[in-house]
Amino acid sequence: MSTVELASIPLVEIARKTRDASRKLGVLSTEAKNQAIAAIAEALESAASEIVAANQQDCQAAEKMGISKPLYNRLKMDETKLKATIAGVRDVGKLPDPVGQVQIHRELDEGLILKRVTCPLGVLGVIFEARPEAAIQISSLAIKSGNGVILKGGKEAIASCMAIVKAIRAGLAKTKIDPDVVQLLTTREETIELLKLDEYVDLIIPRGSNSFVRFVQENTRIPVLGHADGVCHLYVDEAADLEKAVAIAIDAKTQYPAACNAIETLLVHRAIAPQFLTAMAPKMAEKGVELRGDEATREALPEVKVATESDWSTEYSDLILSVKVVNDMDAAIAHITTYGSKHTEAIVTENNHTAEIFLAQVDAAGVFHNCSTRFADGFRYGFGAEVGISTQQMPPRGPVGLEGLITYKYKVVGSGQIAATYSGVNAKSFTHRDL
Amino acid sequence: MSTVELASIPLVEIARKTRDASRKLGVLSTEAKNQAIAAIAEALESAASEIVAANQQDCQAAEKMGISKPLYNRLKMDETKLKATIAGVRDVGKLPDPVGQVQIHRELDEGLILKRVTCPLGVLGVIFEARPEAAIQISSLAIKSGNGVILKGGKEAIASCMAIVKAIRAGLAKTKIDPDVVQLLTTREETIELLKLDEYVDLIIPRGSNSFVRFVQENTRIPVLGHADGVCHLYVDEAADLEKAVAIAIDAKTQYPAACNAIETLLVHRAIAPQFLTAMAPKMAEKGVELRGDEATREALPEVKVATESDWSTEYSDLILSVKVVNDMDAAIAHITTYGSKHTEAIVTENNHTAEIFLAQVDAAGVFHNCSTRFADGFRYGFGAEVGISTQQMPPRGPVGLEGLITYKYKVVGSGQIAATYSGVNAKSFTHRDL
Repeated sequence: MSTVELASIPLVEIARKTRDASRKLGVLSTEAKNQAIAAIAEALESAASEIVAANQQDCQAAEKMGISKPLYNRLKMDETKLKATIAGVRDVGKLPDPVGQVQIHRELDEGLILKRVTCPLGVLGVIFEARPEAAIQISSLAIKSGNGVILKGGKEAIASCMAIVKAIRAGLAKTKIDPDVVQLLTTREETIELLKLDEYVDLIIPRGSNSFVRFVQENTRIPVLGHADGVCHLYVDEAADLEKAVAIAIDAKTQYPAACNAIETLLVHRAIAPQFLTAMAPKMAEKGVELRGDEATREALPEVKVATESDWSTEYSDLILSVKVVNDMDAAIAHITTYGSKHTEAIVTENNHTAEIFLAQVDAAGVFHNCSTRFADGFRYGFGAEVGISTQQMPPRGPVGLEGLITYKYKVVGSGQIAATYSGVNAKSFTHRDL
Repeated sequence: MSTVELASIPLVEIARKTRDASRKLGVLSTEAKNQAIAAIAEALESAASEIVAANQQDCQAAEKMGISKPLYNRLKMDETKLKATIAGVRDVGKLPDPVGQVQIHRELDEGLILKRVTCPLGVLGVIFEARPEAAIQISSLAIKSGNGVILKGGKEAIASCMAIVKAIRAGLAKTKIDPDVVQLLTTREETIELLKLDEYVDLIIPRGSNSFVRFVQENTRIPVLGHADGVCHLYVDEAADLEKAVAIAIDAKTQYPAACNAIETLLVHRAIAPQFLTAMAPKMAEKGVELRGDEATREALPEVKVATESDWSTEYSDLILSVKVVNDMDAAIAHITTYGSKHTEAIVTENNHTAEIFLAQVDAAGVFHNCSTRFADGFRYGFGAEVGISTQQMPPRGPVGLEGLITYKYKVVGSGQIAATYSGVNAKSFTHRDL
């Protein structure tokens, strides 16, 4: 595989090849898939020096372009990081196989058996930032779940991704799996074209900036797993334990401010606002957090900047926090309904009845009581892997593990049964007996 | 509620009211919802003469417009049909509550508990044909699943639907449930506007012609439950039992040709084609089925019309069947992959190994062995109710019961836990213990 080859094949042909190869992958045994994952790990180890060299090339080019330090750190892939990533590949081999699980097993009538069985989606299109190890993680998760995958990494990581995908395909070539199940795109034009291939691509997973994810959502008919915004709230109820409330607020804002599950707005019950705000403000200041408050907040904390309407819908991804005093929980829920992004919403209260109402009435993928919003994460939930966090209304919702990469089909096996037997005047009854 | 009132309120306001009312409905107990369903049944009984009179008005108007007999039969709602439909409402009361089911219950750490709990989607938009009882069935299923619903029935059924929704709302007014959870739209303009309200409507269920469903799919960002096409195939393998194959083919084509799970194309293995085709043709002729065959089919059945390229992708919904002879199962699967609509695909064979490969490799919501495609149906699968059949790749797929109207949320309850405790050098471990 070379850039030249890639460029010369129309994307629709690449997608068709991926689909055809993935159809065969999808029916392989767990053992065969795990062998392929082991082969990928070995191939990556063999190609380690080549991959690290390609990454150095990417890093040098990026430095010349004046890449920021955090982005550089994501791009950089030295031998230690590669080793850790390869260990992650072997961990994927140990995960339970999400394919072939029988969800429903039912006798419709004697000798007429219905099974609902999990199966791969088909072909994934994954567009990710300039983080080379993502190509490795995603490929191994795709193969474990029986899916083909078309990868597109950030442009700064082109040489790294090409070296990685070359190694992965070389590893697959030694197994039963057609290397065409893993493909790499290298241009932005191909990304745009990929979004149009709804006949061949079954799920798009976009990673990156909010505006990029929104662009993808608005420009494809393929289902999109992910979320554009993470405008999360913490509501401090009048019956909150002050110490817990302050600790949770600090953690939810500052433990990793760029995370989608960090809070952007604090809603505080009027009855507890003076005590809570004066206890919280100095600790936020210590952590370098800039507060922006409504009028009532500024009564307690006059030094705080004025929050404007746009603050309530802004995901700062930074050490900035908007603060609003509310008259009651209904007002807090109404604010969340208007400005929230259905990601993760939390309440701090010692009143369990109040908490129950909040958890029931707030419509979000995650609703938390007396803990930090930062727990909203596939690894913390114990899913073993996270392919994305979904804020859509329909399942899969919230942090999505391997189950987000599978679907199911209904298999019905009979011995000549026809529907006419079960309709009309002398209709035979179904037994509908779960097995 | 009157037409005048409806027309005077902007649709976005109606949708907002429905959302707010449905949020309160969504947290009610099973008992409260079942009481509301009982109240609806009673209110419909009380309003029976009014509903039947409104329906007669619709029927007379439709007759003047020269409505076809099958459509007239769907539109007509006499006392018997109304009674049966009301009995169906009471049956919905008996269904298990799909809301509040705990799907995951896990200790993340001592005192930090994760639950994944099913909850309503929010607001459904259901656009259905001129069949008044659909308004009743859909409303009761929506309330059972805790959802608000905005209904739009076929224009020929306007008076019937208005009388029905008036009764349903009168019934709800006697319960804890805000009548605003059930709304009726009456114009096509409102339907178009409804498709744009992705902030307020969580799922669109379109029923009706293929072209209408496709129009909805292409003109909304709201998830759509349903399918435009049902191009289903029956593949008769070389190892098929001839008698079973003929019986299944006849049933799958003729038992209800307008159904989406009826077959449109028969694929026949070359080795069995002469015997099978000559055995099948006279029985299809008896049932009035017009066959359209490829060249090889016409060698065995010279009297059969020529199938053209467009036949392979046509859902006839009528007593017409296209027939193609294939060299092997791979060719049959390739044909299905190209022309199928991922609805229901069946194989007839006595070779179980062949059947397993077919069921594994064919990508469709339903894959059947030695039985009629007509079994692809929520009631026949024992789901108690069917809200639609989905041919999309992601779940819900295939016949969808009440579970298609729900989603889930993650609830995490702690006692002050923060993420910082579980990260860094002295990170505490999660226990991840299922409860």
